Amino acid sequence: MIGSLNHVGIAVPDINQALAFYRDVLGAKDCTEPKVLAPQGVKYAFVNLPSGQVELIEPYGETSPIIRFLEKNPKGGQHHICFEVEDINAAKALMETRGMRVLGEPRIGAHGTLVVFLHPGDAGGVLIELMESHKTHQDSDKAC
Amino acid sequence: MIGSLNHVGIAVPDINQALAFYRDVLGAKDCTEPKVLAPQGVKYAFVNLPSGQVELIEPYGETSPIIRFLEKNPKGGQHHICFEVEDINAAKALMETRGMRVLGEPRIGAHGTLVVFLHPGDAGGVLIELMESHKTHQDSDKAC
Repeated sequence: MIGSLNHVGIAVPDINQALAFYRDVLGAKDCTEPKVLAPQGVKYAFVNLPSGQVELIEPYGETSPIIRFLEKNPKGGQHHICFEVEDINAAKALMETRGMRVLGEPRIGAHGTLVVFLHPGDAGGVLIELMESHKTHQDSDKAC
Repeated sequence: MIGSLNHVGIAVPDINQALAFYRDVLGAKDCTEPKVLAPQGVKYAFVNLPSGQVELIEPYGETSPIIRFLEKNPKGGQHHICFEVEDINAAKALMETRGMRVLGEPRIGAHGTLVVFLHPGDAGGVLIELMESHKTHQDSDKAC
């Protein structure tokens, strides 16, 4: 069912500072400019690696689900992991059949494809995002 | 400097139960049998995906660094992320030059190549592992 590990989501208090860390300290060479995904309450940017991605997410708006995470982890930290699936509706149905709590209906994620999240309480304490795979990156504005 | 996202490290209280979750619920088709890496105080197994890996780690021994993590996160959770580097000694030196605290000297990791960890307090709250890249997987005993 699950395909590739698409990205690791990392919550950060300041996305520009985080981008500077990945670019200037870790030496990443391909990062995208921060964009807002208002329905999910995040500002996000991708650090594109030869294989795999880091998704940096900063709270956006007063009801952002990231705010509470950062209250517990003021410096930031690993927030979710994202696996690719071929068909999000089929994946959601299969997960529910197997007793998983799926958080809400499929919605557009930062890559422009449909995503759902699985309840971390059913998944070994890990917030798992499932996303329909995509052929090309949606984010072309480069920050590094 | 950093290359591909090699794996996400997930701490688990019971590695066989975690493997069953990735295999039977998420549908992963390529997992390795648990092995012990005594010097690092972990029992580990890999979930190999078409691209990327999940490394499941269970505490091994009374001084395992994972014990405290699981006390705070009894169900388990995301523990570290691992990026590939070409030369671990050059990477360690560069990180120190850039003000990062590197935790100890390079040592053999679960893939059989040298690894170091960066202090999460210098890395946005994320425990980052750097590992020398490798051409083939060391773990061939399959659990799924």
